[in-house]
Amino acid sequence: MNDIDVKNTRRRVDTVQQCLEDIKVILESHQYIELDNRKEQSLTELQERLDSMHPADIAALLEQLPLDERLVVWKFIPSDVDGDVLLEVSDAVRETLIADMDTQELIAATEQLDADEIADLAPDLPEEVIADVFSSLSEEERLQLKAALSYPEDTVGALMDFEMVTVREDVALDVVLRYLRRLERLPPNTDKLFVVDRREVLKGALSISDLIVAAPETKVCDVMSTDIVTFNPGRDAEGAAHAFERYDLVSAPVVDAHSRIVGRMTITDIVDYIREDAEQESLGKVGLRDEDLFSSVWKSAKNRWLWLAVNLGTAFFASRVIGLFEDSIEKLVALAALMPIVAAIAGNSGNQTVALIVRALAFEEINKSNAKGLLRKELSIALVNGILWGSVAGIFAWLLYGNIALGFVMLGAMLLNLIVGAGVGMLVPLFLQKIGRDPAIGSSVLLTFSTDSMGFLIFLGLATVFLV
Amino acid sequence: MNDIDVKNTRRRVDTVQQCLEDIKVILESHQYIELDNRKEQSLTELQERLDSMHPADIAALLEQLPLDERLVVWKFIPSDVDGDVLLEVSDAVRETLIADMDTQELIAATEQLDADEIADLAPDLPEEVIADVFSSLSEEERLQLKAALSYPEDTVGALMDFEMVTVREDVALDVVLRYLRRLERLPPNTDKLFVVDRREVLKGALSISDLIVAAPETKVCDVMSTDIVTFNPGRDAEGAAHAFERYDLVSAPVVDAHSRIVGRMTITDIVDYIREDAEQESLGKVGLRDEDLFSSVWKSAKNRWLWLAVNLGTAFFASRVIGLFEDSIEKLVALAALMPIVAAIAGNSGNQTVALIVRALAFEEINKSNAKGLLRKELSIALVNGILWGSVAGIFAWLLYGNIALGFVMLGAMLLNLIVGAGVGMLVPLFLQKIGRDPAIGSSVLLTFSTDSMGFLIFLGLATVFLV
Repeated sequence: MNDIDVKNTRRRVDTVQQCLEDIKVILESHQYIELDNRKEQSLTELQERLDSMHPADIAALLEQLPLDERLVVWKFIPSDVDGDVLLEVSDAVRETLIADMDTQELIAATEQLDADEIADLAPDLPEEVIADVFSSLSEEERLQLKAALSYPEDTVGALMDFEMVTVREDVALDVVLRYLRRLERLPPNTDKLFVVDRREVLKGALSISDLIVAAPETKVCDVMSTDIVTFNPGRDAEGAAHAFERYDLVSAPVVDAHSRIVGRMTITDIVDYIREDAEQESLGKVGLRDEDLFSSVWKSAKNRWLWLAVNLGTAFFASRVIGLFEDSIEKLVALAALMPIVAAIAGNSGNQTVALIVRALAFEEINKSNAKGLLRKELSIALVNGILWGSVAGIFAWLLYGNIALGFVMLGAMLLNLIVGAGVGMLVPLFLQKIGRDPAIGSSVLLTFSTDSMGFLIFLGLATVFLV
Repeated sequence: MNDIDVKNTRRRVDTVQQCLEDIKVILESHQYIELDNRKEQSLTELQERLDSMHPADIAALLEQLPLDERLVVWKFIPSDVDGDVLLEVSDAVRETLIADMDTQELIAATEQLDADEIADLAPDLPEEVIADVFSSLSEEERLQLKAALSYPEDTVGALMDFEMVTVREDVALDVVLRYLRRLERLPPNTDKLFVVDRREVLKGALSISDLIVAAPETKVCDVMSTDIVTFNPGRDAEGAAHAFERYDLVSAPVVDAHSRIVGRMTITDIVDYIREDAEQESLGKVGLRDEDLFSSVWKSAKNRWLWLAVNLGTAFFASRVIGLFEDSIEKLVALAALMPIVAAIAGNSGNQTVALIVRALAFEEINKSNAKGLLRKELSIALVNGILWGSVAGIFAWLLYGNIALGFVMLGAMLLNLIVGAGVGMLVPLFLQKIGRDPAIGSSVLLTFSTDSMGFLIFLGLATVFLV
């Protein structure tokens, strides 16, 4: 990780924006300049600007450039930061950059990274690159890379790094300080050293604060904390993120079943995970995988198909429900105008239930002992809101069409469909969670499917029985 | 801010769950036990369990308890952690706890907190409590509290703390180490000391890593980094969060316009902010403010009204659009069954555009130079998808109703409405951002309003012109 060379982030962000505009100007003028002299000058300027940028800023810049300009700029990125930039860009953009590199460039970029970082890139790299990089690693790094690759995505093992500093419990703090002084620097996010025995079994943690504040002759075992938060590498990252948040951690040891230390989780990895997870969720809700803002129309269109196909299927189904009642609609055409209201409001209300239940599930706030009570509460709220808003809609229908029976059908249908929405909105996330799917992603489609189809069925059904 | 007394978080989380169940058993048996002896025994057990829990775990426990049980447990929380627990619980739950405390209890709980923490609680506290706490603070703390209260929510100033350790640039590292040894501990998240001159003007930062690793006789100014990320207290927290993520920061100084240090941002505050922001967003999308899972039916119902009222309004409007074409529907009732498909698919497709644009806006990836190109791209995708899925829907309509003209009207309406969805889905988030609203929250309602109303208008309009 690099030192930050900025005085002020506002200025820094402005610099990225400014640089983006400058680069655009340089690239544009470059296309029209034929004099080799001026051409080279503008490119030297580009090179100088890029040389001074933080890899994360370069990544942000590349994500904001259309594909052709992105690849021109990519050629000018100093090769010693290629690997860091690849780690920072989004998956979709990374794909476009890797596709533009040859095997040698990829090997050069990858070799500079730590084992855990190589593991992050591995799924996107050609096999020959991985084989070559693997053979260039030390024995220890190979074991680390193998370990990092062996854990599924979104587990602690896949997110951990191997930059932990370990000490023995029977030495004095000034010995520890002398040992540390031989290192060039401490790894980023080192707020504590891990105390282990000769078999690498974790005995405790020595906080940097204690190391500095306690008397130099104190033994490690006298100041170390023995009750510390540890993670198993197979643990899901979501749980680790909650623990980091809850206990305000900066780093934590990862240990195997025998309490042997195998790696380290840091807040930096957790923050990246939280952000990516939130992003995946907001895109996943509308059926999208990560999409490069500047990918081709054709590629983007295809990325959106599955979702549209699923929704077209549910819409067709709802349409056939309406089709069952075409006779009734022919007799009383007001039904056609009113039926979308019944479907929409129950969908909106059900989505409120979904949002609350999904949040409660994420924080593990729902358990067997309170689930039934919560369902009862949601149904009661639907009852209250059904009577209230059903009456509003019923009066609207009555006034508009001068048919009081139509008003009552409207009220009845709204009430029943809000109850459907509350029940489905509560049970679908619980069910998805139970079968191991992310409740944040699939719940809304299933809910809307139910409230649309049932809304049409209930409203048109009641109307057929009581009105026509 | 407390030490963590846990070996393993999995076990820890289990402990919270176990404790929850035990407490439920204790509370239930307590209600039926009349013998004072056994009653006291079970309560002693409850007290012991709560005494050993981390404030964040107590907060999680309280959030999972229905109101009456929550207040019983709250009485048993050791009073020296009351303040910490209040800081950890959600706004809605905090309200219920504060309502249950008298002035003296609130003052006792608040007095133990730091100035920045008091500022976080202040909006929920009665005025007399704040006045009393204020008068008990030192002069320095009063200034800090005033400063923290003076910044609007979601700015750096509102999130910063005042626990920064500052040193002078002309001293040697061993002098710094001796100075630190006089402190009892370093503040949490201290990965660097701030180097200031006698007027508190920031000169640089001394990383703890350099402090430990460099030779003791080195002067601070020779190892300190002078190019560091700083924040202005008026800066929006979102921007600070991006900088922490991008540059992997653990702490950063907050400086005023004269570069004088006024506070400190830490990754702990940033992580809490990110999580709360994500939560507010997912609830805000369905028109909810923070809701206590166990609040009364009546209170919850009211929390959901505004959203339902807004959506009922838009649904009424769409209904009146359909009303314009009742004659056409009466003549060709198939229109009633098909029209929701046209509205729904454009809504789904437009919501994909919204999700991508909202994400790009959050990462500042959209600017004047690329906005037009992106709009063109989204419209092109809508064209491709409109022709494709419009044809599928058109063929469906043709086969079902044996009317090829109806199929073409379906195709035309789908195509046009997908274009409406793409345009609105792109422009609405940009517009909301421009007028200073959160594009993640209002975009979806406005989009669905447009695709519903326009979907009905286009489909029924085309049908009226070409079919009936």
